[in-house]
Amino acid sequence: MPTAAVIIIGNEILSGKFTEENAAWLIGRLRELGADLGRIAVIADDVDAIASEVRRCSEQFDWVVTSGGVGPTHDDITLESVAAGFGVGMTREPALVALLEKYGLELNDATLRMATVPDGCELVEGDGRSFPVLKVRNVFVLPGVPKLFKAKFEVIAPLFAGVAVQTARVRTKARETDIAAHLSAVQDAHPEVEIGSYPRFGEGDDHVIITLESRDAAALESARMAVQAGVSRLDSQ
Amino acid sequence: MPTAAVIIIGNEILSGKFTEENAAWLIGRLRELGADLGRIAVIADDVDAIASEVRRCSEQFDWVVTSGGVGPTHDDITLESVAAGFGVGMTREPALVALLEKYGLELNDATLRMATVPDGCELVEGDGRSFPVLKVRNVFVLPGVPKLFKAKFEVIAPLFAGVAVQTARVRTKARETDIAAHLSAVQDAHPEVEIGSYPRFGEGDDHVIITLESRDAAALESARMAVQAGVSRLDSQ
Repeated sequence: MPTAAVIIIGNEILSGKFTEENAAWLIGRLRELGADLGRIAVIADDVDAIASEVRRCSEQFDWVVTSGGVGPTHDDITLESVAAGFGVGMTREPALVALLEKYGLELNDATLRMATVPDGCELVEGDGRSFPVLKVRNVFVLPGVPKLFKAKFEVIAPLFAGVAVQTARVRTKARETDIAAHLSAVQDAHPEVEIGSYPRFGEGDDHVIITLESRDAAALESARMAVQAGVSRLDSQ
Repeated sequence: MPTAAVIIIGNEILSGKFTEENAAWLIGRLRELGADLGRIAVIADDVDAIASEVRRCSEQFDWVVTSGGVGPTHDDITLESVAAGFGVGMTREPALVALLEKYGLELNDATLRMATVPDGCELVEGDGRSFPVLKVRNVFVLPGVPKLFKAKFEVIAPLFAGVAVQTARVRTKARETDIAAHLSAVQDAHPEVEIGSYPRFGEGDDHVIITLESRDAAALESARMAVQAGVSRLDSQ
């Protein structure tokens, strides 16, 4: 399955000026597509922080998506940070300059920032009219404006297609400490199923929500039945 | 000002099983307290991932808060991962064992996991009745259950007290490309103010929200007036 990481470049999120929307949306979209999201990082608008996060995620995951910092203003430093992360230079891309002119933008230092990309950057075309998605190695550099982020992600969404994970839940009134050994045994017997245990207080009578996830439907059902049998025994005691 | 990072240990967030609540809450709380949140990482329930993130954040920030993975079940691996991150062993802590007994829990492999902590771990007392906050160097290991996370954070909240940031906003109908040079000049003239520029589409007539933040009220007002003067010129053209 494709693995993915998302890097939110956003002082505005860390300081609470804006609520994070893009990672929150991408979680659900990647789940639908069947990719495995392995990491979300929300980091400051800082070249070193972005560069090191991009480099690390690029090594560890199939695909990396960044959000934000690609406009014309002084706080838009993602492209230069990606270049720094990969130790490459920056080039003015004629196809992007042409697009800026087509949009009727004056070509000045600010607008040309948007057309100056890391060496080796590929332009991934969408509908042929709007700004392309910028791809540097396995990193897609997307805009942070939520509406644009979502639209641009859909251009590359097919690359994230895998087999969707199936899920099951078991609820129990038993304490987590009383079911831990049982869950551990079921987990050991079903390595292809991921079993999680989440105590919830103040949400009705349930003490623990046990979640099961797998891409193997038969294994999922087998594990679910085994978990259920154990907690039913405890709940009836 | 105190700087902080938060590490959410959570397959359940990455896979979309549960919505992230703790970092979302902490953003606002740290803002109230006046600390600078520099990084949020949502990572998988994986010893290597947790260990390296904890080590890195511990070096870069004054305080680190982790969320999740501290219960008695097989997926609770935060404490051993923190130990791995700092290259220290684990010790069974008698004070915690006594607390488990006081709670009426049977002492078995599962419950004793909660009393086995990294070497050098300090127990930070809250109200003297509930489980203490676990502190390993500058890392606070908090439970992931939102209600508990918030309660435990309040025990250590005074450590995060600084001077609250003040903010201002300027809205403009100008395009970001047309205000970039002006913003950059105001930013250069006001290094103690952080100026951000966020295009927003489909939200009324505003094209760009310009945010200003500073702990220096006079500098903030000076920068706000300078930004406003520039965009008023453009908006009236």
